[in-house]
Amino acid sequence: MTCSLLLDYYQLSMVEVYLKRGLNSRASFEFFVRRLPEKRNFLIAAGLEQVLDYLEGLSFSKEELEFLEEQGFSGELLDYLSNFSFSGDVWAMAEGTPFFANEPILRVEAPLPQAQLVETRIINILHFQTLIASKAARVAIAAGDRPVIDFGLRRSHEAHAGLYAARACYIGGFSSTATVEAGRLFGIPVTGTMAHSYILAHESEEQAFRNFIEVHPKGPILLIDTFDVEKAARLVTKLFHEYASKGINIRGVRIDSGDLLALSKDVRAILDEKGCKEMKIFVSGGLDETRIEELVGAGAPIDGFGVGTLVDTSADAPFLDCAYKMVEYNGFPRMKFSKGKVTLPFRKQVFRNLDEKGCLKEDVIGVMEKELPGIPLLVKVMEDGRIIRRETLTNMRNRLLEGLASLPTDFKRLDSKATHQPMLAEFLNAFLSKNS
Amino acid sequence: MTCSLLLDYYQLSMVEVYLKRGLNSRASFEFFVRRLPEKRNFLIAAGLEQVLDYLEGLSFSKEELEFLEEQGFSGELLDYLSNFSFSGDVWAMAEGTPFFANEPILRVEAPLPQAQLVETRIINILHFQTLIASKAARVAIAAGDRPVIDFGLRRSHEAHAGLYAARACYIGGFSSTATVEAGRLFGIPVTGTMAHSYILAHESEEQAFRNFIEVHPKGPILLIDTFDVEKAARLVTKLFHEYASKGINIRGVRIDSGDLLALSKDVRAILDEKGCKEMKIFVSGGLDETRIEELVGAGAPIDGFGVGTLVDTSADAPFLDCAYKMVEYNGFPRMKFSKGKVTLPFRKQVFRNLDEKGCLKEDVIGVMEKELPGIPLLVKVMEDGRIIRRETLTNMRNRLLEGLASLPTDFKRLDSKATHQPMLAEFLNAFLSKNS
Repeated sequence: MTCSLLLDYYQLSMVEVYLKRGLNSRASFEFFVRRLPEKRNFLIAAGLEQVLDYLEGLSFSKEELEFLEEQGFSGELLDYLSNFSFSGDVWAMAEGTPFFANEPILRVEAPLPQAQLVETRIINILHFQTLIASKAARVAIAAGDRPVIDFGLRRSHEAHAGLYAARACYIGGFSSTATVEAGRLFGIPVTGTMAHSYILAHESEEQAFRNFIEVHPKGPILLIDTFDVEKAARLVTKLFHEYASKGINIRGVRIDSGDLLALSKDVRAILDEKGCKEMKIFVSGGLDETRIEELVGAGAPIDGFGVGTLVDTSADAPFLDCAYKMVEYNGFPRMKFSKGKVTLPFRKQVFRNLDEKGCLKEDVIGVMEKELPGIPLLVKVMEDGRIIRRETLTNMRNRLLEGLASLPTDFKRLDSKATHQPMLAEFLNAFLSKNS
Repeated sequence: MTCSLLLDYYQLSMVEVYLKRGLNSRASFEFFVRRLPEKRNFLIAAGLEQVLDYLEGLSFSKEELEFLEEQGFSGELLDYLSNFSFSGDVWAMAEGTPFFANEPILRVEAPLPQAQLVETRIINILHFQTLIASKAARVAIAAGDRPVIDFGLRRSHEAHAGLYAARACYIGGFSSTATVEAGRLFGIPVTGTMAHSYILAHESEEQAFRNFIEVHPKGPILLIDTFDVEKAARLVTKLFHEYASKGINIRGVRIDSGDLLALSKDVRAILDEKGCKEMKIFVSGGLDETRIEELVGAGAPIDGFGVGTLVDTSADAPFLDCAYKMVEYNGFPRMKFSKGKVTLPFRKQVFRNLDEKGCLKEDVIGVMEKELPGIPLLVKVMEDGRIIRRETLTNMRNRLLEGLASLPTDFKRLDSKATHQPMLAEFLNAFLSKNS
């Protein structure tokens, strides 16, 4: 599926007017989140790479143009689209950067028709990965040094969501994903165990385990909650010793239902008692950061978490109040005054100030032309339609860790409402009070 | 993007065992929703067409197989996948059918490795469209005979979600979508107005309106909340008469922020007073079924609704507790006993019983082999891997209307918790009590 027509009808109507009326000057649009969801104290920027790939590759096929012609769009628009090539600049925060309300994380600077045409798809990409990376970071914080695996594809909102949720979760600190295509496309480690149906297809649980162990002798993990968890755990200890003598190391068990605290303790006791201290216990089933924090806090002997639905849909906050707004046109600042939706004009920069220990002191939202103290978070990543800066997922993961380390401890407590309200540079404040 | 590797790693591990151990008998898996979300009294089946297309088209490319080889999968699995062609049967409820908890809406009957391999993607497709069609039906009920337009692409969970949400919303009773690609792929009517940035790109609101009207003279709709709604409404009435004399009919206005009840009344009064009684008022901005019901109930003079984020993410219930479970293997019923997740064995059928007025009396979940009174809702839609039944979106929309008409009024009240608990056929009840 190409994504060229993944846009709103009005973008085409508007571009048609721009073309016919010669509104072709340079426009700047910024993407930002107006306010944070109730349970988010910070957000994590993600999805930039896909935005840049989209912009660099955007073109319109013959079939797409034919459809637009049937819809009654003019020859002028069709000609424009048939030769379309994005030629603008993009400034953005690097993926993995923590950010706050009203901070632009991306700016497009391009001739107005171009900047308008890409509006919807840019929001669509940035919104989703930022949403999921922000959720995943909370989960990873709750899990501490225990690995977290993304199991979310099945209940993600269709295919792309599953795929890009895997990427965003990895940026947010997960260790791996079950989604094979995410491994192929992004190089994320892929992993998995077995389903209940696998067990049910066999004459007995024992036969199912034996078959799996023999076909997958490299550290198999066995699912033990299809019938009776404790019985299955005892069976696994028997198999552990039997196969150990053949050089096969059963790595662990997974529990996917029931009272995970009580069951993990029972299973740990059985494994330890039967001489399987090195076997790991993984759990899954309805987990999110709150549940993980409870389990960890209660001392559940759990070595890793598989999380899915609640994270890949960001179920407690399934969207962000974000926008892509024009801030400058033809060199002049632009702002709207719609109730509750006033925009900040000018091409802006976010200056991050850390204290001597590397902890966040304050962010100041200023304008591009007036440098202020602090680290400027928006950097140029595309010039004249060409990507000039790419980086690896490993870089993004490291940036996230550094970024989280720089945040006040309060921000990282799940039940805390502490967040940062970026300062507005004096210049912006003065402009706003003069114009509103 | 192909979707062949949009599956969980464990499916490949399990299939590898099946191949090496000769577990190749026919298996039946059923998709169902365990329980309805709190604010859903019924669900609407959707997504079947995409499931069938996926199954019919599933194959693995050279690049995909190479990746699996790098991941250490065996030659046996790679050979199997390189010749893969789905050869099973599928039974399903038609799209647009209302259904309830525990009712299977789709069954795959195929050799075990095939039925297992397609697990995740089938859930991924059916879950999402069913989720959205169910939400959209509530919105359409609240809007009554006023058209509802899908504006949700930008905050949908990535591209596919926006695209298939448009389809599911259309099945659920929406009149059109803003997503152009959904128009091209599915034939859904596409429509739209203009953005605030369009207004801001002009020297004045009036010039922006004039340019739009002149370039799009076929019933333009003008966005009037960029600066001052009432001033803009007065401006529009002036333009209405001026352009009417040139044969151009301004169709209406859109308000996208503020107090929509008060503003729609004010604007209606201005339009009526200035002789523009036929002009329509459309509203958008943070709408869902609850807000629409409030506006309609309060007598807001609104002629149509644009809805987006809250519907396309099903924000009040962003996922369904659904599963794809093995119910039979090699002719024998299968069930698991995991706590809180006991499955119903046997290949099942749902028999819907209506009273003499066509109203829902009861659904009975029975087994395929024992016919019961009522309309069997699952029909064969794929045979030996070939689609044998396709239908139009119009059919699905009509089925939805009939289905909604058959539901008790209680089920259709937004704040009601009334739902239907399907009966279990005596045979199933007896089997369950004997085996649990």
